[in-house]
This record gives sequence, structure tokens and C-alpha cells, in this order.
Amino acid sequence: MAVHVFDAAMALQPQGADRFAGHCGRSYWNAVGPFGGISAATMLNAVLQHPALLGEPVSLTVNFASGLAEGPFTISARAARTNRSTQHWMVELQQTGAQGGAPETVLTATVLTAVRRSTWSGSDVPMPEVPGPATLPPGERMIPLEWLRHYEVLPVVGGIPKDWDGAENDGGPDQASLSRFWMRDHPERPLDFCSLAALADVFYPRVFLRRAFRVPAGTVSMTVYFHAGAAMLRDCGSDYVLGQARGQFYHAGFFDQTAHLWSRSGVPLASSTQVVYYKE
Amino acid sequence: MAVHVFDAAMALQPQGADRFAGHCGRSYWNAVGPFGGISAATMLNAVLQHPALLGEPVSLTVNFASGLAEGPFTISARAARTNRSTQHWMVELQQTGAQGGAPETVLTATVLTAVRRSTWSGSDVPMPEVPGPATLPPGERMIPLEWLRHYEVLPVVGGIPKDWDGAENDGGPDQASLSRFWMRDHPERPLDFCSLAALADVFYPRVFLRRAFRVPAGTVSMTVYFHAGAAMLRDCGSDYVLGQARGQFYHAGFFDQTAHLWSRSGVPLASSTQVVYYKE
Repeated sequence: MAVHVFDAAMALQPQGADRFAGHCGRSYWNAVGPFGGISAATMLNAVLQHPALLGEPVSLTVNFASGLAEGPFTISARAARTNRSTQHWMVELQQTGAQGGAPETVLTATVLTAVRRSTWSGSDVPMPEVPGPATLPPGERMIPLEWLRHYEVLPVVGGIPKDWDGAENDGGPDQASLSRFWMRDHPERPLDFCSLAALADVFYPRVFLRRAFRVPAGTVSMTVYFHAGAAMLRDCGSDYVLGQARGQFYHAGFFDQTAHLWSRSGVPLASSTQVVYYKE
Repeated sequence: MAVHVFDAAMALQPQGADRFAGHCGRSYWNAVGPFGGISAATMLNAVLQHPALLGEPVSLTVNFASGLAEGPFTISARAARTNRSTQHWMVELQQTGAQGGAPETVLTATVLTAVRRSTWSGSDVPMPEVPGPATLPPGERMIPLEWLRHYEVLPVVGGIPKDWDGAENDGGPDQASLSRFWMRDHPERPLDFCSLAALADVFYPRVFLRRAFRVPAGTVSMTVYFHAGAAMLRDCGSDYVLGQARGQFYHAGFFDQTAHLWSRSGVPLASSTQVVYYKE
């Protein structure tokens, strides 16, 4: 069976002693570097591939310190603390620049994994009622970027603005920067923790929607909390996931946005938040 | 002038080469260790004290890997990447156990600092309209914990349940786990990045409120995004800050909750999210 483009993009070769080697290609290329979601997935993948791994991911924070370039990189993933049922990881991706020299840090991350057990469960963020994916027109790429070739994204509300007219959208806090998308990998691929982390980053910068203005912008830090276990993700198969994103506060070059993801049947899968640089 | 109890609690002595020494005392003691907010402030303080610091904090993620014990600790704070206007830090707190042996990691953190500049600004999370702090009865400690002696907390809604009757509160997603508090240090202390980070952690676990059930619970990872600069924080002086917290998804031993903080005059100061362990 051919390797899925997603798996190829985040593939790592163990180098022993907490080290992994990978290669950044063009398959998930964004404007000036790879899609942040594939970078987040790759950092998480290092932890999931580690022989000392305990449990499943609960929390992932990835910091985008610089632009990843096409070419080889190395990741160090170290279990800073292992308890009876939880484990805390520090992860760092380094790459040697085109001019050579010492490797430089491009991404940092922390990951919490845990052996989970059954407890009371609940949700205070209801899944929005939206039309099913079959009722929506087939997705076309919102922006002609390479990475979007590998996703089906069906906007329910909050697709990328068609008119970049700079008309500030302040029509109510619940709507001004709201997007709801049905999303999945293309070609289809069974959902797992890495692809879920990447899906949490599919939402384009809220400042585009809020201002109908294409200001230069890029994620600088993203946190994903996983609210489903591996078995639950397997149950999702390669079906669509519903994602909802909203902006929060915008100030002096940085704003933040949240995302929530549910299975088609309404199971909470992940919540996420990210802080994004914007130029003006 | 006497040193404020908050400054004493997060005080660090530079040890050269990215290292700092500190001491965990009882002044901000919680049930089985210090209040998470003082630990978060201490990790941030290491970065802010570092001679190589560039700019002001934008993002802080702290992972609570184990319980900090009374006694000395060391922090390493390393600038993993320094760009022209941003800097990415990796921070780790280690402590030697009561039985001696090698130091073990207790807290990990990543911090993004940046030189910010003026841009368009906005908010998609309106400050709730609430009665001013002077109209509320003087705060009494919600829970008889040492750290709450050092805060004034005036609940507007969502104070800690008085009846622990296990009556699950699912009366609407906006209300089930909502708290709004006026808060400030006690005694009064001018607001700064460290105290703001700590204030983002004042909200007790949402699972208490949601279930009116005191299940063992503790924060395992917290992220704070700063939306104000140092000058804006100085303008707040030691006035009350309004904080709002809500729970999100609860599943298999971990749930997450958000927090938003505004100055009394309505300026967005910080947004935060945390994932919390709960036992049953």
C-alpha cells in the first residue's frame, strides 16, 4: 500500500538516544514554509515514536521559532519527567541553514502524555448544529496553497473572504471571526492524534476574516488539548470532522484564536488555541 | 520598603549561564504544593530576569510535571532561538527530593517574548457587563487555602459551590461552568506580567462548579497569552482585574478551561487555557 502523503511528510527515522531525523519537503508547503499543522504533527510524532512513550497525548504546545526550510532536520525528544501515569516531554527541532554552520532551533514543543482512565465526562461547548457535509458544495481550495491539496475543507460559515475590501467585520462578537468547517484529509486517511493536531491548524488567521484584509500573518505558538483516546479516533475512521474557530484579542502585532473539533457524531475530539503574529 | 509576598515567593538568584536558584516556601501553599499561578510566575520571572531577554512576554506555557516541594530549586532558562524581534525560551525547574539523589524535573515551560509594535487592534470577546467591585461584599476566602490570603477575589458569578451536593449543573453551556471574578493581589501590588500570569490561574477547577462535587483535581498544563504591554499593565496600577473562566471538554481524567482577563476600564490583558487532571 502506498504511504499516505501525510505519513510521508511527518516520517521520522530513529537515530537513538532521543534523536530522530526527518526531511521537510514541498507536499504541505504554505506561503513561505510548510503548513504549521504538519510541523505540529511531526513534533508530536517524535514523541509517539519514542520507545519510552507512556500513554497517549493529552496536551501539545508547539512554538514556531523560525521558518522550516526544505531539507533535512533533526528532532530531539526527551522525557523530562515520567510519573506513574503521566509523562512530560521537551521536544526541539533543529536544522542547518542553507549557508551551513551550526544547526539552529526552528521549532520547540512540550507534550504531555498520560494513561487515561474512565471518569465522568461532559461538555460545556456544544457542537453547533450545521448542515451535513453531503449537503455542501464540493470544496475548492480556499487559497491556492499546496498544503490545501491534501485536505477536503467544506466551509459551513466563515470561508475565506471573497472580497478583500478591508471592511471590518464587527457584526457581533459571536460572528465576526467565526468559521465552521467540515474537514478531512485528502485522500482519506484514518484519523489519529497527529492528523487531529494538524486539523486544529487548518483555520486560516482570524484577522483575515475579521478585517477582510490580507495582512501578513503566521502562527507563533499553538496548543492542542486532546479529548479523545486512540480507540475513539479509530472509530472516526476517515469521516469528516467538524471544526469551529474564533478570534479573541488582537493587539500590537499578535492575536489569538481558538478551535474546537468534534467527530461527525458529536464526540469532542480536541480544543486548541494559538497566538498569531500579524504585521499591521 | 518591605518586599511584597508575591515578589518574595518568585524571587530568583542568578547563578550565571542560564541558571537561577529559588526557594519554594509556604506563603502561596495550596492543598499539596504551591498555587500553580506562583509557579507559572516564577518560570516567567526566570526569563524576565535573564540578561539576554528580548522584548516582552507574548506567550507562556507551563507544564506541571510533578508537585513542587518546600525547599530550594534551580531553573534553567535558555533562549533556544533569537530572531530580530522575537525570542523563544525553554525553561525547566529541577528539585532534589527529600531523599536526596539526582535533581528531578518538576516544571517545564516555553516562553515567547517579542518586541511589539503598534498595529490595528480589536477584540472578539467582549468584556462582560458586571457590577463594579465596590458594589460587591468584601471577599472572603473561597477555600481556606494559604495562597488565597494573598488575593482579593470578589465573585460576581460562579463562586465556589456552597453545597457540595453533586447536583450536576447543565443549565446551558454559557452558565454551567462560568465564573466572573474581580481580582487583585493582597496586599495591593502594581500589576505586571508575572502577577497577571498568576491571576490567570486563580479560577478553581471548573469541574467543581459543573458537578458541585469536590473531585481531586490539579492543573497539568497552562498557557497564557499576553495582550497588553508593560506600559498598559503599569496603567492598571493595583486596581482590580476582571476575570472570566469557563470549562470546555471533560473526558477520561482531563478537562480544559479557558480564562479571559480585562482591566477595569475594559482593556484586554490576557487570555489563558489550561488542562486539568481530575480523578473520577
